[in-house]
Amino acid sequence: MYNSESNTKKCRIVVDAMGGDFAPQNAVIGAIQAYNENKNFELFLVGKEDEIKKVIKENNLTYDSSKIINADQVIEMGDSPTNAIKTKQDSSIVVGAKLVSDKKADAFVSAGNTGAMMAASTLIMGRIPGVGRPTIGALMPSKAGTSLVFDVGASVDSKPKHLLEYAIMGTIFAKEIYGVENPRVGILSVGEEESKGNEVSLAAAAMLKKTNLNFIGNIEGRDILEGSVNVIVCDGFVGNVLLKFGEGVLSLLKAKFKQYASKGLLNKLKILLVKNAMREILKDFDYQEHGGVPLLGVNGISIIGHGSSTPKAIKNMVLRANEMYEKNLIAKIESSIKQYSNII
Amino acid sequence: MYNSESNTKKCRIVVDAMGGDFAPQNAVIGAIQAYNENKNFELFLVGKEDEIKKVIKENNLTYDSSKIINADQVIEMGDSPTNAIKTKQDSSIVVGAKLVSDKKADAFVSAGNTGAMMAASTLIMGRIPGVGRPTIGALMPSKAGTSLVFDVGASVDSKPKHLLEYAIMGTIFAKEIYGVENPRVGILSVGEEESKGNEVSLAAAAMLKKTNLNFIGNIEGRDILEGSVNVIVCDGFVGNVLLKFGEGVLSLLKAKFKQYASKGLLNKLKILLVKNAMREILKDFDYQEHGGVPLLGVNGISIIGHGSSTPKAIKNMVLRANEMYEKNLIAKIESSIKQYSNII
Repeated sequence: MYNSESNTKKCRIVVDAMGGDFAPQNAVIGAIQAYNENKNFELFLVGKEDEIKKVIKENNLTYDSSKIINADQVIEMGDSPTNAIKTKQDSSIVVGAKLVSDKKADAFVSAGNTGAMMAASTLIMGRIPGVGRPTIGALMPSKAGTSLVFDVGASVDSKPKHLLEYAIMGTIFAKEIYGVENPRVGILSVGEEESKGNEVSLAAAAMLKKTNLNFIGNIEGRDILEGSVNVIVCDGFVGNVLLKFGEGVLSLLKAKFKQYASKGLLNKLKILLVKNAMREILKDFDYQEHGGVPLLGVNGISIIGHGSSTPKAIKNMVLRANEMYEKNLIAKIESSIKQYSNII
Repeated sequence: MYNSESNTKKCRIVVDAMGGDFAPQNAVIGAIQAYNENKNFELFLVGKEDEIKKVIKENNLTYDSSKIINADQVIEMGDSPTNAIKTKQDSSIVVGAKLVSDKKADAFVSAGNTGAMMAASTLIMGRIPGVGRPTIGALMPSKAGTSLVFDVGASVDSKPKHLLEYAIMGTIFAKEIYGVENPRVGILSVGEEESKGNEVSLAAAAMLKKTNLNFIGNIEGRDILEGSVNVIVCDGFVGNVLLKFGEGVLSLLKAKFKQYASKGLLNKLKILLVKNAMREILKDFDYQEHGGVPLLGVNGISIIGHGSSTPKAIKNMVLRANEMYEKNLIAKIESSIKQYSNII
């Protein structure tokens, strides 16, 4: 039943030039870098035309200016998402999402206001038929293998059937994008025993057992980073708190190292000596390295980046969008969700 | 209304000699060490008398053997908690909890089966009047200050009023045990804005606003480790997943350092050089250092330790139990819960 065909037409990717704390600079540079690396897609930049052109000129970039789509408004980081997409109809985020819903583009990438990007993608692009709630996945660092958590913030108070949807979409993502043969799926819970969990996790586990996904049962918080389970499903409240807690651990560690170094010259020398080692070891914990996170379940490719995205992060997001298109992810999600419609 | 009196009678502490992966060895040694350090309480050891006496003899410890309370059964780590406390009536955990409920002891400390210890404490000691759900708190490492999370696993699917109870009990604990003047209370959520959260967190925030606790609103996962909020309340499902995720981060870091060291002699030397620094930096992340966690809301002092508790951890748990008694924590919780009975 699985639609395994690839897309052969070129992907049309729209990048929000105004999205992120360092826009339009980082967004424009990163997007054009992606295009120069792999010209197998069409690149559109949406935002304030003058500002985009200025970045292109100042950085001596080559870009066909007919592919700049002007949008005069900007949804700021502090704007209320649902309000902003209503009142700022000419913002880069609304215009970008509309291009996808009008079938004038296939993918939209933004490092702008996360809430607005989620709302615009869900409300303007719409959901894939059969999907109740779209989900955001995050790649976690792990000892070995691929470890993806769904959902990390697209929706709270998920119902059991939503966790099943996350598992279905996450399985396709792990398989197609990370090349995991038969992704192992686990439900995040408070114990490995089948009886452990809350109302939602227990009911979701019962539903998952009825599928032919590679469901291995409950996993605990400490198992996430082992990498032996590839797709970990949980409510977006739990996933979001976890993701930010992980960032906090990294920040605390850095602070502790600084504190240690400040306690004397010998300490300082020791820390200096292992600085590169530390950087190498901690880089897996840096969520920016992975670029953005996909919003799965909306009817189009939508990738959301961190506000502080570097050009490299933007570049990775654009290349990821192209890959999702080439592998026909939306169609594959639609057909897999349909397959389980009797359970959902 | 606040009962600020201290207990003047000596605390009678029962230690589960059979609790933990290294029982009776670690439990007996740690408990007697605590007693030798601070003789201002009475110490009882519950468990298999012969085995306890053997540990005392082999380690040349001094202990009044009339204070050994024999219990022939042991609840194993793998036993089903509720089942075990029903079928193993002569187990050290059941006998210990009964001593407290019979007013023959004031505190019970165990590093045994966590679920059985929670069930025995709750069902046998009973709850403090007005408390709907007891809660387990965990001390988190932080940049500065004291950061305690309630609940980390005593109960899942908490209702808003239970989060309020955790806040009340956590405030007393932070104040009395950690000396925090006017503990700042936050609700763990997916954003700092008042509108962010799930159904339970939003309703709990509305209730907390009506109290005169020092409630500062929502906090995010990354704020836990800042230490600027002293009492962080959340459902036990979320807290438990977080706590174990934190353990996982530490374990992953250690694995990464090992991996790095294995990549050549120079790497190995670098890691060796900073080994002590690393140990110092990471020790705050080691939950065992803090001894056990208190189960607040039950009608008696109950402290639950990690299965792998060292003698030092057991010692710290016993001293903590004594401190909780001397500061009259149970009476203070009862009076504070009563004060808010119109809101709960």
